[in-house]
Amino acid sequence: MSGFDTELLKIGQKAKFAARKLAYIGTAAKNEALLEMAEALILHEGEILKANSVDIKAAEAKGIKKSLINRLSLTSEGIRQMSESLREVAFLPDPVGEGDFWTRPNGLRMQRMRVPLGVVAMIYEARPNVTVDAAALCLKSGNAVILRGGSEAIESNKVLARIIAEAAERKGIPEGSIQLIEQTTHEWVQQLIKMNQFIDVVIPRGGAGLIQTVVRNATVPVIETGTGICHAYVEKEADFDKAIPIVINGKTQKPGVCNALETLLVDRKIAQEFLPLMGAELQKHHVEIRGCAETCAILPYAVPATEEDWGTEYLDLIISVKVVKDLDEAMDHIYQYSTRHSETIITENYTTAQRFLIEVDAAAVYVNASTRFTDGGRFGFGAEIGISTQKLHARGPMGLKELTTIKYLIYGDGQIVK
Amino acid sequence: MSGFDTELLKIGQKAKFAARKLAYIGTAAKNEALLEMAEALILHEGEILKANSVDIKAAEAKGIKKSLINRLSLTSEGIRQMSESLREVAFLPDPVGEGDFWTRPNGLRMQRMRVPLGVVAMIYEARPNVTVDAAALCLKSGNAVILRGGSEAIESNKVLARIIAEAAERKGIPEGSIQLIEQTTHEWVQQLIKMNQFIDVVIPRGGAGLIQTVVRNATVPVIETGTGICHAYVEKEADFDKAIPIVINGKTQKPGVCNALETLLVDRKIAQEFLPLMGAELQKHHVEIRGCAETCAILPYAVPATEEDWGTEYLDLIISVKVVKDLDEAMDHIYQYSTRHSETIITENYTTAQRFLIEVDAAAVYVNASTRFTDGGRFGFGAEIGISTQKLHARGPMGLKELTTIKYLIYGDGQIVK
Repeated sequence: MSGFDTELLKIGQKAKFAARKLAYIGTAAKNEALLEMAEALILHEGEILKANSVDIKAAEAKGIKKSLINRLSLTSEGIRQMSESLREVAFLPDPVGEGDFWTRPNGLRMQRMRVPLGVVAMIYEARPNVTVDAAALCLKSGNAVILRGGSEAIESNKVLARIIAEAAERKGIPEGSIQLIEQTTHEWVQQLIKMNQFIDVVIPRGGAGLIQTVVRNATVPVIETGTGICHAYVEKEADFDKAIPIVINGKTQKPGVCNALETLLVDRKIAQEFLPLMGAELQKHHVEIRGCAETCAILPYAVPATEEDWGTEYLDLIISVKVVKDLDEAMDHIYQYSTRHSETIITENYTTAQRFLIEVDAAAVYVNASTRFTDGGRFGFGAEIGISTQKLHARGPMGLKELTTIKYLIYGDGQIVK
Repeated sequence: MSGFDTELLKIGQKAKFAARKLAYIGTAAKNEALLEMAEALILHEGEILKANSVDIKAAEAKGIKKSLINRLSLTSEGIRQMSESLREVAFLPDPVGEGDFWTRPNGLRMQRMRVPLGVVAMIYEARPNVTVDAAALCLKSGNAVILRGGSEAIESNKVLARIIAEAAERKGIPEGSIQLIEQTTHEWVQQLIKMNQFIDVVIPRGGAGLIQTVVRNATVPVIETGTGICHAYVEKEADFDKAIPIVINGKTQKPGVCNALETLLVDRKIAQEFLPLMGAELQKHHVEIRGCAETCAILPYAVPATEEDWGTEYLDLIISVKVVKDLDEAMDHIYQYSTRHSETIITENYTTAQRFLIEVDAAAVYVNASTRFTDGGRFGFGAEIGISTQKLHARGPMGLKELTTIKYLIYGDGQIVK
């Protein structure tokens, strides 16, 4: 057995051992640990910023692009926000131990109770705040977590994970509840996602490449998150005063995230009138337009789109634009290219809106609103560990409840099956 | 592309196409189809029995063991029961379209609605009634189903699937909603469980071999069902008048099912007194005892157990018996060998019972009752498509709700993210 196998097995065993205890540690103890973790981040600000600057210098030396370096960078304000988000998790209700209860005709009393999943492995990319958020949500829901961040943020992640794990242990959380894998080579991930004996679920969070690698190779159950090829369909009865801000918001407010807009579909009946207005606004926001033939005929500055464009998550100031015949063609296009994350229609027609809501298959389907709302916080869930684009277990923003499963506790007095 | 690839792709495409329509067919239409299916089974009784007798003759010729042939056999009464179970599904509440609703401070109105998963692939073994039950539950929950039964029941399954699919289509259910794969070679399963483009979930139902093959090789999400190494722990404060019937019931009432008992753990403090009574009763029921050294010393007729016995699901009139020091040793044994299906303790001690309920990690944990109760019907869920032994999506008996996912429908009037 090679060195990394042994090391990983040790991490897995420690996590599993911690999880068995964590499963029935009370909410008050978990909350105290979260508050201690929040305080520890503030106390160790200098150390965190120093580690982060090492990561940033390394990234700059490697010539990594500006938007990625921005995701990587921590500031005093950023650390204060991470600390604040730990406090918020402490004040969220604990799903563990919740449930319902009924009695069977034979007198068996049945309790259906929420319990932790066990051991969660999080595999993620640049942003170091995921280290803190994921650890907090897993701890609050009674799960041990194995964190595996990207190589770009490794120094920041090491310091953050150590600070919060030590703070949690000071408050009685079992050792091994929060662990970071410090090696960033690819082999470790391949091994990790096959450790069914220790890990109950893998959550990949990052770009499409990372997510597909995990989905294709894992034998541990995976919750697929985040790839978003989101569409806005501006229907022939759209109110342009709603449509233009919704498209601009979806595309430009934060282009690097999964709920950002990637494709605009426009009804042929309004294309001549709408596209020049929309195009001018997109240009003002420095958005490159990749259009179908009809779009390019109306907007001379649009670049012709290729087949590949319809299936691309740009995560950048680029939008693909296609003119469609009607609602059915729009829904067929979405059916073919959507990653089932978030889709929006802009229309004033009641029946069209209802058909879109019911017939489009996605985690979140909007009428007259920006796809950027698909987020645990903005949905009112308090916190999120990712946005699921699969249908099993969780769909859409995942909060604490999605990090739990159920168990039946059954109270008998000698019942047997007749 | 080989012949079977093309054929399977066609089945997948048809199912996906049907699912897109089925997703928003109303409950009344689905119920009418279920009642038509129920009637059709009765009308075609002769044809079904004829096909079944072909399967049984083939099985007898192959020398397949009696218990398997029993599972395969249909009778007039069996057909009447299948028909009745279709009627029962028609009268169950439809989970599709249920949900909750809230409003965000910015005025966005949020609906969380249950929707079908899409296309369900069921891979199962001998019992032909699974063909009918699975089709009924998938139809009621708005899913298209691809059925793949075992070779032993192929003639029965072909006739059953054709009769119910035709009945459903007569009532307006889209063609392709209920399909049976008529080829029973292994390659077809291997291909089926990798058709992510068409299939949303695979549910294997059968022996441990089948289930592990599917779990290890599928790229489509799997709901793992049914392997049950279930334990009864007779604790030192057990009431023997409860313990003996619970063990006999768990082991002998229906030994071939996943919630049957496989291992008995006995507290050392009562072993000398309890085991002779228990052993005599097990012998009366023709149960072979495979015991640890202490058990064999007390029961001279017990066969020495090997390490392999503790990890074996016998599904037969065999029980492994181990003497343990205390609750902790019992729970450690269960932790190591349990498939997390159903576990029971027999005790009169309150604190011991509570610790067992909370600390044992399984879908169903019992005090003073038989593990044989772990079943959708006996839990009060009306019907079940299998018993999940995994933690994601569903745990324990799975009914209609577990065949659905959720979707957010969001009503805006121009909201954008600030």
